[in-house]
Amino acid sequence: MSIEQNKVMNLEQEVNVQPLPRGFKWGAVKAGIKASGKLDVAVAIAPKTANAAVMYTKNQVVAAPVTVGRRHLQVTGGRVAAVLVNAGNANCATGQAGIDTCVQTCVAAAETFHCIFDEVIPSSTGIIGVPFPAEKVIAALPAVEAALGDTPAHAELFAQAIMTTDTRMKIARAVVTIDGAEVNIFGAAKGAGMIHPQLGAPIGPPHATMLVYLFTDLSASTEELNKLLAPAVEQSFNCISIDGDTSTNDTVLLLASGDTRTRLNEQTTEPFANALNQVCYSLAHQIVDDGEGVGHVVTLHITGARTPVEAKQVAKAIAHSPLCKTAWSSADPNWGRLLAAAGYSGATFNPEKVNIRIGTQPVFELGMRTPHFDEAAAHTTMQQREYTITLDLGQGNSECRFITCDLTAEYVRINADYST
Amino acid sequence: MSIEQNKVMNLEQEVNVQPLPRGFKWGAVKAGIKASGKLDVAVAIAPKTANAAVMYTKNQVVAAPVTVGRRHLQVTGGRVAAVLVNAGNANCATGQAGIDTCVQTCVAAAETFHCIFDEVIPSSTGIIGVPFPAEKVIAALPAVEAALGDTPAHAELFAQAIMTTDTRMKIARAVVTIDGAEVNIFGAAKGAGMIHPQLGAPIGPPHATMLVYLFTDLSASTEELNKLLAPAVEQSFNCISIDGDTSTNDTVLLLASGDTRTRLNEQTTEPFANALNQVCYSLAHQIVDDGEGVGHVVTLHITGARTPVEAKQVAKAIAHSPLCKTAWSSADPNWGRLLAAAGYSGATFNPEKVNIRIGTQPVFELGMRTPHFDEAAAHTTMQQREYTITLDLGQGNSECRFITCDLTAEYVRINADYST
Repeated sequence: MSIEQNKVMNLEQEVNVQPLPRGFKWGAVKAGIKASGKLDVAVAIAPKTANAAVMYTKNQVVAAPVTVGRRHLQVTGGRVAAVLVNAGNANCATGQAGIDTCVQTCVAAAETFHCIFDEVIPSSTGIIGVPFPAEKVIAALPAVEAALGDTPAHAELFAQAIMTTDTRMKIARAVVTIDGAEVNIFGAAKGAGMIHPQLGAPIGPPHATMLVYLFTDLSASTEELNKLLAPAVEQSFNCISIDGDTSTNDTVLLLASGDTRTRLNEQTTEPFANALNQVCYSLAHQIVDDGEGVGHVVTLHITGARTPVEAKQVAKAIAHSPLCKTAWSSADPNWGRLLAAAGYSGATFNPEKVNIRIGTQPVFELGMRTPHFDEAAAHTTMQQREYTITLDLGQGNSECRFITCDLTAEYVRINADYST
Repeated sequence: MSIEQNKVMNLEQEVNVQPLPRGFKWGAVKAGIKASGKLDVAVAIAPKTANAAVMYTKNQVVAAPVTVGRRHLQVTGGRVAAVLVNAGNANCATGQAGIDTCVQTCVAAAETFHCIFDEVIPSSTGIIGVPFPAEKVIAALPAVEAALGDTPAHAELFAQAIMTTDTRMKIARAVVTIDGAEVNIFGAAKGAGMIHPQLGAPIGPPHATMLVYLFTDLSASTEELNKLLAPAVEQSFNCISIDGDTSTNDTVLLLASGDTRTRLNEQTTEPFANALNQVCYSLAHQIVDDGEGVGHVVTLHITGARTPVEAKQVAKAIAHSPLCKTAWSSADPNWGRLLAAAGYSGATFNPEKVNIRIGTQPVFELGMRTPHFDEAAAHTTMQQREYTITLDLGQGNSECRFITCDLTAEYVRINADYST
C-alpha cells in the first residue's frame, strides 16, 4: 500500500497542520528521570475518556507498566482517561516494588486528572532493572497538568518526551473523510534500540522500548478498534527490526475519543483502516530510519514464499544477520550472505529457483550469480540512504515487506556505553 | 566435562608432541586463491584409506563441495583416501558450474594421490557466489603431493592453510590408552566469522565456514564413528556462536585410519568418547576465542530449564542478542538485557524464579536486582578475557553450556570490508 493509492486521506509527517484529533490534550515536563535533564514525563488525556485497543510485546518478561496497563484495561473494558509515560527508566525486572510504584503513579495521576486510577495507562521506557523513581513522576504531575493543551505544539512535546536514544521525534497524521465529516488520526512513537517488536493480543505476557500512541476522534468500540489495530500492527511494527532484540515494554495503544461522533460502516471501514495502516507504516519506517547508528534503511521484499510465515522467516533471518547488516553498512553487494541467511531461516526452498535483486540490479538467478551482475551498479544502489532488496523464493505466492537497517560501529558504540 | 575428570587422556593444544595418529599425511601449498598469497590449499591423505563420519551444516543452501562430499560418502559407504580443502573461495551459490569444477578437482586429486575420485572429500571456505578457480587447485596438486608428510610440522601447515580470517591455527590432540595401546586423536579447525554451526546428519541440506577435521588411528567402522561424532558435535560445535550466522559449508569430518588395529569395546568406548569430546570442545573454544573482533569469550551456563531444548533456546537468544553482546564488549553489567533476551527466546519460565550470576556475582533474583548487587565487582569480572554467566530458570533440571563472545566495532569493520 502506498500513499498514492489512497485518495481519501492525506498523510503528513509534520504535525504543524491542523487539525489534530479532537477530544485529547497532551503535555510533557522535565521530571529529572533522564540523566540528560530533557523532557521525560509525557501525558495524554481524554477528558471525556476514550475507547482503547492495545497490543503489548510477546516477550515473556514484561515491565511493571505493561502488567498494570493490561490489568486496568481488563477492569475498565478498554476505557482510558489518561496515558502516563516516562522515559529514562523501563520499570522492568523491578519485582513487586516495580508494580507497587507503578500503581502509585496511576493513583496520583487519577487525582491530578480527575479520573479513576484504572483509567490511567502507564508506560515506561529506558534502562531495565533499576528501581523506579515513582516520586519523581508523582512530583511532576501538577506541572504536567498545567502544561496540557490540544495544539500541535503540545502534541509535539508529548512526542519529544517519550524519546530515549531517538535523535528526533516520530509523528504521523492522517485525515479521512467519512460521511462528510473529517476524522483525524495522530500518532507518536519512540524507538531507537531493542527494536524487533513482536506484538500480540493484550492477554498474555507483555514489556516495551518501542512505544506507539495512536489517537483518533472516530467513535468506535474497543472491539472495533482491536479489529483495526491488529492488522495495522502486523504489517508495520511487527515487520521492522533494528537489532532483533524484542523489548519487554513494547506497546501500541490506539485511543478513540468519539468526539466526531462519526462511526464506521461497511463503506468507510476500509478507507479508515488504510489511513491507520499508513500512519503505522510511517511511524514504523521513522523508527528504523532513526535506529541507533543506522546508515542505511533496507526494505526486504520477500516474494514467492509458500506461506506468509515463511516469507517473514526469510526476512527476519536476513534482518538479524550481522554479516548481511555489516555488508550493508559499507554498501558491499555481498549477496551470498543474503542467500546463506535465507538458507538457515527455516523456510523451505530450492536455491536453484531463488532470484535476488538489489534495487533494480539482478544479482542471483538459476543457482548462481547472474551473468550480467554489475557489482559497481549494485554498490551504487547500496550507497543510497534507502533501497530495497528483493528475494524471490520461487515456491509460491506469499510475500512480505520488512524494514530493517545496517549494523554499524556506531550502533556498537551507543550500546556498549548505555548504562556505564 | 573437564580435562581433570578424565585420567586416561592427555590433551595438548600444541602439536609439537609426538605422536600424531598414524596412517595419515598432511600437506599444504600456496595456490593463489587467497588474495593475501598465503597457504590456501590443504590436503590430508590416508594411504590405506580411512573410515569416515561426517556432519554437515543444516543450512538449506549448501556449497558445491558439501553436495559432492555427501555424494562421495554415500557411494563409498564412508571410505576416504584424501581430503582436499581450499580457503579463499567457498564454491557456494555457484550453480552447476560449481559442482562441475568441484568434481574436476576431485578427479585430479584422485590421479595425484592414487585413489578413486569418490574417495576424495572436497571442502571450501571463503567468499560465497564467486566462480570457483578449480584450475588453481588442480595446478597446485603436484606441489601438495611433494609437500606431504606425517610430522607435526606437516599437520600444522594443514591447519594454517584452511584459515580465512582466523588469526591463528586451531589444533587439539589427545591420547587414549586402550588395551595397552595408545590411540591418538588430532583435530584441526578454522572459524572466525559466520560461526553458528547447526550440524546435522549427512543426509539433508548442507554449506560451511567452520571446517573441522578429526583424525584418529583407532580402528572403527563408519557406523561406530557416527555414533561417537554426533554427541561430541552436539556439545561442542553446535554449542558455540560468534555471530549467529549459520554457514553454508560447515563441516566436521572424522577419519579413522585403523592403523593401531585397536578396536573399541564396552570398557574403552567411554574413555575414547571423552577424549574425542574434549578435542571437539577445545577446538570449539579456540574458534570462539579467535572469532572476528572478539574481546571477551563468554560461557553461558543455562540451568533449571524444563528441557535441554529450552536451555539452548535461552542460550542462543542471549548469544545472538546485539544488546547483550555490545554490553559485554565494554564489560557493562547490564543484566536486564540478558533477562529480556531470555524472555523472547521462546522458553517458558516465570521471571520471579530466575537467578542470574555474572561470574560469582549475584545480580538478579526473586524478580528484581539482588539487594547485594555489586556493580563494580560485576564490572571487574567482565573485564576478564573470559568468564561465565549463569542463568537459572528455576523450572526444571535441564541445562546447557554455550560458548559465545562480545560484538565489537572491530567485528563490524572486518565484515564491512570483506569483499570490497
